[in-house]
Amino acid sequence: MLRVFRTKAGASTQTVRRQTMLSKQAACTGPKATAFARHRCRRPGQDRRIFFENIFHFFPLDFNFIIRFSIGISFKPERSTRPAMTITTPYYLIDERKLLRNLKKIERVRETSGAKVVLALKCFSAWAVFDLMKRYMDGTTSSSLFEARLGHETFGKETHAYCVGYTEEEIKSVKKYADKVIFNSASQLRRYHRLVRGRAVGLRVNPGISRSHYDLADPARRYSRLGVIDKREAASVSHLISGLMFHFNCENDDLNNFTSSLEYIGKTYGGLLEKMEWVSFGGGLYFTKDGYPLRGLCAALREFAARFGIQIYLEPGESAVTQSAELVTTVVDIVKNEIDIAIVDASVEAHLLDLLIYRLPAKLHEQKRASFPYMVAGRSCLAGDVFGTFRFSRRLAVGSVVRVTDAAGYSMVKKNWFNGLPMPSIVVKRLDGSVEVVRRFTYDDFKNNVS
Amino acid sequence: MLRVFRTKAGASTQTVRRQTMLSKQAACTGPKATAFARHRCRRPGQDRRIFFENIFHFFPLDFNFIIRFSIGISFKPERSTRPAMTITTPYYLIDERKLLRNLKKIERVRETSGAKVVLALKCFSAWAVFDLMKRYMDGTTSSSLFEARLGHETFGKETHAYCVGYTEEEIKSVKKYADKVIFNSASQLRRYHRLVRGRAVGLRVNPGISRSHYDLADPARRYSRLGVIDKREAASVSHLISGLMFHFNCENDDLNNFTSSLEYIGKTYGGLLEKMEWVSFGGGLYFTKDGYPLRGLCAALREFAARFGIQIYLEPGESAVTQSAELVTTVVDIVKNEIDIAIVDASVEAHLLDLLIYRLPAKLHEQKRASFPYMVAGRSCLAGDVFGTFRFSRRLAVGSVVRVTDAAGYSMVKKNWFNGLPMPSIVVKRLDGSVEVVRRFTYDDFKNNVS
Repeated sequence: MLRVFRTKAGASTQTVRRQTMLSKQAACTGPKATAFARHRCRRPGQDRRIFFENIFHFFPLDFNFIIRFSIGISFKPERSTRPAMTITTPYYLIDERKLLRNLKKIERVRETSGAKVVLALKCFSAWAVFDLMKRYMDGTTSSSLFEARLGHETFGKETHAYCVGYTEEEIKSVKKYADKVIFNSASQLRRYHRLVRGRAVGLRVNPGISRSHYDLADPARRYSRLGVIDKREAASVSHLISGLMFHFNCENDDLNNFTSSLEYIGKTYGGLLEKMEWVSFGGGLYFTKDGYPLRGLCAALREFAARFGIQIYLEPGESAVTQSAELVTTVVDIVKNEIDIAIVDASVEAHLLDLLIYRLPAKLHEQKRASFPYMVAGRSCLAGDVFGTFRFSRRLAVGSVVRVTDAAGYSMVKKNWFNGLPMPSIVVKRLDGSVEVVRRFTYDDFKNNVS
Repeated sequence: MLRVFRTKAGASTQTVRRQTMLSKQAACTGPKATAFARHRCRRPGQDRRIFFENIFHFFPLDFNFIIRFSIGISFKPERSTRPAMTITTPYYLIDERKLLRNLKKIERVRETSGAKVVLALKCFSAWAVFDLMKRYMDGTTSSSLFEARLGHETFGKETHAYCVGYTEEEIKSVKKYADKVIFNSASQLRRYHRLVRGRAVGLRVNPGISRSHYDLADPARRYSRLGVIDKREAASVSHLISGLMFHFNCENDDLNNFTSSLEYIGKTYGGLLEKMEWVSFGGGLYFTKDGYPLRGLCAALREFAARFGIQIYLEPGESAVTQSAELVTTVVDIVKNEIDIAIVDASVEAHLLDLLIYRLPAKLHEQKRASFPYMVAGRSCLAGDVFGTFRFSRRLAVGSVVRVTDAAGYSMVKKNWFNGLPMPSIVVKRLDGSVEVVRRFTYDDFKNNVS
């Protein structure tokens, strides 16, 4: 049975109401025929939303069947041995069941440690899954006015607003959306604190320590502009604030490392912390990783909170969404230059930018003993648009599906229109197994972006 | 006197008609008070276009006056000693007069060498200035279906379509827009050439030489997937094509270097070239740079064309737009960490991405002997969001305008919504001195981008 949802955008695009209805059907030629339906969203010229439910399995990895269909144009099986239905690649596929694994760990940390946990929108802003996430988290934190508004409107609960530098106009608007406003500098705090009267106000402090592997991402790098360095300067404005933010972790999966940093912060900023009601330790802790000693983390947080009589906040981004999304691509060509190169219909620079910035290979499901090595490359004009070299259990061919894993954090928020390549759709696999295309990008989106 | 233009988007967003009209006025308190007007474009919820004409001077560089106004919210002078009018920063400012300097050089090359010159949309797609550019160029070249369509619809004349890997659906659509279709591999050519019958068909050949300073951008790098490496393979499909593309330059400002490459290509691919009607030498030649020996370039092109009886194409991107645009930003905070750091309302990662990818400093107008050094940094959360360190002739303060030069090529096409930072508007200073805001980005643009 297929249920189809139609999306309606009201006068405002901010609320999307869903109505269950029957719709057009198109027969599949496979033995387990199903149906599909489409609806053009009423956000004019911009957005189509297509909702599927109860399609058997979701695109297995072994590439042995592919039914391709271009939505609204054709629907025909190709090299199919088992029927299924695919959405036109490329697309980001967020799997709520996988997301839930992280969210349950977050819930456990909240319950056991007493810390509150807010989602860092700078890492992940796909509000299509916020209905699920907000059940397990306390709210959101942001890096700009727009993110603060998005958090307030789509996630609700607590909204923390931080920005490296606000303008006066922005700070006035931020007040409408935020419960807490955290300033990056004493000068911003002094200049604008009166404009956010009635909100909890905080200050980012830079303890000069960090656990980043990359200079680019290291808040303690030389000349860092992130947070107040001078303890006396922080103390001089402490009467204006009720909380502090320390953001000093980046991909830190080592509990000892974190607890020794906590120890240092307690020792160095103890006097200041005692005056505060809350403290945020930012993001960058990989505590949802398999094997991470959650019990030890919770004990350390509880102890710190008790010691200073303070409410702790954590602001995970990557940890909230790790291993929960894929970038699903299709091979469009195989070429040979010493090695076999599979060119897919996506691009590192346009769709997984951090791989390029940090010179990292993409992650694919491990097939280390498989027989067929391929360099997987993007199809932008960039010579270095390369996902990496991987081993596959079968030969790849035009039409093979290649799935890049762990594609949620810091990727969807940075996607761009370089080369005018098709921007990946955003697809959500819901907890109940239904699959929903929440956003497709069109030629008009591209055209309206470039001028 | 101020004339105000109102924009109307018709049923199609492709044509924008302009109507002169009087509009709302808001008095400026400065001695040379002027007026402004705004209009919400009828592309619903998405686009506002605001047109200004005859505003006295255009934002001098010396920062000694600023009148800030948030369109539609407030309009008040701040620290103003001389009146003027600013558009809310950040914005990309394309100056058609500066553009014209490049275009005139391009015209000279076309007339003197007989080569045709098409704009590489991968570098610059701001179609708001295509009415000017198309008078001096022969058309566009592209890296995707969307770019090909954009070139066809907004630039016209010749449309070259190239892509590292087409899908079948795309190649069918490309045929509607392109005069020439250039395939990246023999396999793509064999697979799809029948689908573009009636169009000139070409093949990219990789001569194994390049002049790139960066491995990332080097088409001759090891395992390159860009173009056919094997000469015999290229020869085996030569009956299917009428032209070849060699793209082997990247930031090449050395004519001798280019002519020796031409010599090599003539020697190596002479047999193939004799069968062809046209050849493209791609982009990456910095021939619009001051002092570049245009006469020598034209002679070399003319000679090559005559030798093989072939029509040459050049595909400049950067050379067409170099030094013609600025990213205009405003200082939102000054902090100190060993040195003075001016934080501006833009971001390297979100708005001038190549600086981050290639680890380059931004360009500002040279003030090497000036007294006040500042690190200029962006306001994304990224620790390494730094434009560079520069000397200024005056102290910077909150509200100072900082202009990053040479901000057109490979920047506007890669801008993204990282951190939900305000995306720079696109502003054009026309030949007649009028200033036109052709695109503003809103919260809804951000929200609709992330899911």
